Amino acid sequence: MQDNLRGTGEVLALDIGGTKIAGALVRADGSIPARAQRPTPATAGSKAMINSMLEVIAEILDSGTFRPEGLGLGSAGVIDPRTAKVLSATDTILGWAGTDLAGQLGTRTGLEVRAVNDVHAHGLGEARFGAGVGSSDMLLIAVGTGIGGAYLHHGQLVSGSHHVAGHTGHIDSVYAFGLPCSCGRTAHVEAIGSGPAIYWHYQRLANNPTVKNTREVAQLAQAGDEHAHTALSIGGMAVGSAAASLANVLDPQTLVLAGGMAEAGPIWWEAVHAGFVASAIDALAQTPLLPATLGTDAALLGAASLFWNEEFEENVNVA
Amino acid sequence: MQDNLRGTGEVLALDIGGTKIAGALVRADGSIPARAQRPTPATAGSKAMINSMLEVIAEILDSGTFRPEGLGLGSAGVIDPRTAKVLSATDTILGWAGTDLAGQLGTRTGLEVRAVNDVHAHGLGEARFGAGVGSSDMLLIAVGTGIGGAYLHHGQLVSGSHHVAGHTGHIDSVYAFGLPCSCGRTAHVEAIGSGPAIYWHYQRLANNPTVKNTREVAQLAQAGDEHAHTALSIGGMAVGSAAASLANVLDPQTLVLAGGMAEAGPIWWEAVHAGFVASAIDALAQTPLLPATLGTDAALLGAASLFWNEEFEENVNVA
Repeated sequence: MQDNLRGTGEVLALDIGGTKIAGALVRADGSIPARAQRPTPATAGSKAMINSMLEVIAEILDSGTFRPEGLGLGSAGVIDPRTAKVLSATDTILGWAGTDLAGQLGTRTGLEVRAVNDVHAHGLGEARFGAGVGSSDMLLIAVGTGIGGAYLHHGQLVSGSHHVAGHTGHIDSVYAFGLPCSCGRTAHVEAIGSGPAIYWHYQRLANNPTVKNTREVAQLAQAGDEHAHTALSIGGMAVGSAAASLANVLDPQTLVLAGGMAEAGPIWWEAVHAGFVASAIDALAQTPLLPATLGTDAALLGAASLFWNEEFEENVNVA
Repeated sequence: MQDNLRGTGEVLALDIGGTKIAGALVRADGSIPARAQRPTPATAGSKAMINSMLEVIAEILDSGTFRPEGLGLGSAGVIDPRTAKVLSATDTILGWAGTDLAGQLGTRTGLEVRAVNDVHAHGLGEARFGAGVGSSDMLLIAVGTGIGGAYLHHGQLVSGSHHVAGHTGHIDSVYAFGLPCSCGRTAHVEAIGSGPAIYWHYQRLANNPTVKNTREVAQLAQAGDEHAHTALSIGGMAVGSAAASLANVLDPQTLVLAGGMAEAGPIWWEAVHAGFVASAIDALAQTPLLPATLGTDAALLGAASLFWNEEFEENVNVA
């Protein structure tokens, strides 16, 4: 929400994922005058993680004359925005759970530290600088290796009472009946709609080992291959139908689709629209389904925006 | 949220449904010292509706010495809380769409009028006086003739950008595959989990015309009838699984189940819990699933609470 931005300050932002730590100096107009990144030392423990983050920060600050007003983080794992601590995390980053991001980074950078989950940061970025600008309520659904998302209400992130809100991939889908999900349950939309799910759906149909990844499945579908078309279309239908289910409960102003599948082309998008129309109630049939516009910068912009949000202190104290 | 209550005022509240108009004088502690009601003149048009509402108000005010600070309404139809107008409505109440509740009732009662949808009022009531007291984020799922609900975030109603949020009955359910829904789509949880859906599910299995309603199906299930047990259990599983899908996205502090099915007994509740556990991610498996405590008074208390909510003006202007 542009309304919530104020000041002309600069913020240092980091996007901390399982494979890389991306950093940027972000201005309040959304421009990024400096960047740096390091591979994630995913198996080396929390101290190595903090050191790599400090290296990224140092490289950015050394590259120009910047006066950041804070350090905003979007990080893998369950992050408590009130304390900037990692409440829990998978073994994707060894030893990440329990890390006190504010404590570790605040004194060593002299900056105030604010943090949210990386997918939540992604949603904040699209809401405040991307496809959601102008919408007070936005639901982001990111469809890639998994399916995740973020819900913004009145321009503010809904973090959830355990800070795990936004698991849009883990809602029931009739298209996924009988299929195991990464979370250990069955019949969730991620099990039929994620990139890998589409690939394995294609392979169950075609049993064709020369096709190596989801991108090739999408290309085959575009070229007219029946099995690839089925796998890609049903994946899109499932995502669209899940989007409609959530729209029927949340009535967001805008739905934004992000992640690799949102770049898979018209067959996928048409299926998403078909799935949405098949499940959305009449009043919501015209809800815009928009492609995300910021790519991987969304999480950096969203993390930075934690400092350009007059409601932040109020909200984190009420959560 | 008790935190949001202030003053010791009294509010007149009406719950306007398709069969009756219930009214009450509500105190800020949740007590109800006076009540009245009239049948809904559902086919007589908007003017007759307003007159019946005025009769209910007059009867309440004549029954004691009250000084209401406002008139709070929970009404069937899509209600815009910013204007207290009926944006749209089905033919359940003829001519209801377009009614200006504030304009029609404000001058004739001398009271400020605030209004929300009746299911939204129900959610506000349970959140502020019932099963949700103490929870900042609550999702209500009401399972009766249909399935509806309301989502409260930071103690405030999420009304939605078209004010139709809370259609919890219209999310996809694997249990409802192939079944038509009241909204014109298929495979929504209402089509297998509502009271009538459970009745017709039983009849498809048993073809037994001596069983007249869902209450009798629940009694048969409790007595060991296999078909009744199946219909009741699958209805409960479907509701529990839908609740889990929504919990995975919203991470509410509390889930509250209301409506007639919430009083159907242990077979239904055990099935709801089983369905919830089958679809909830690990972090949310312990989310409390609580029975509503206020019955039909919930909507009256919720409508009254529109005047005991310091964030009301702020929120309705941001929506």
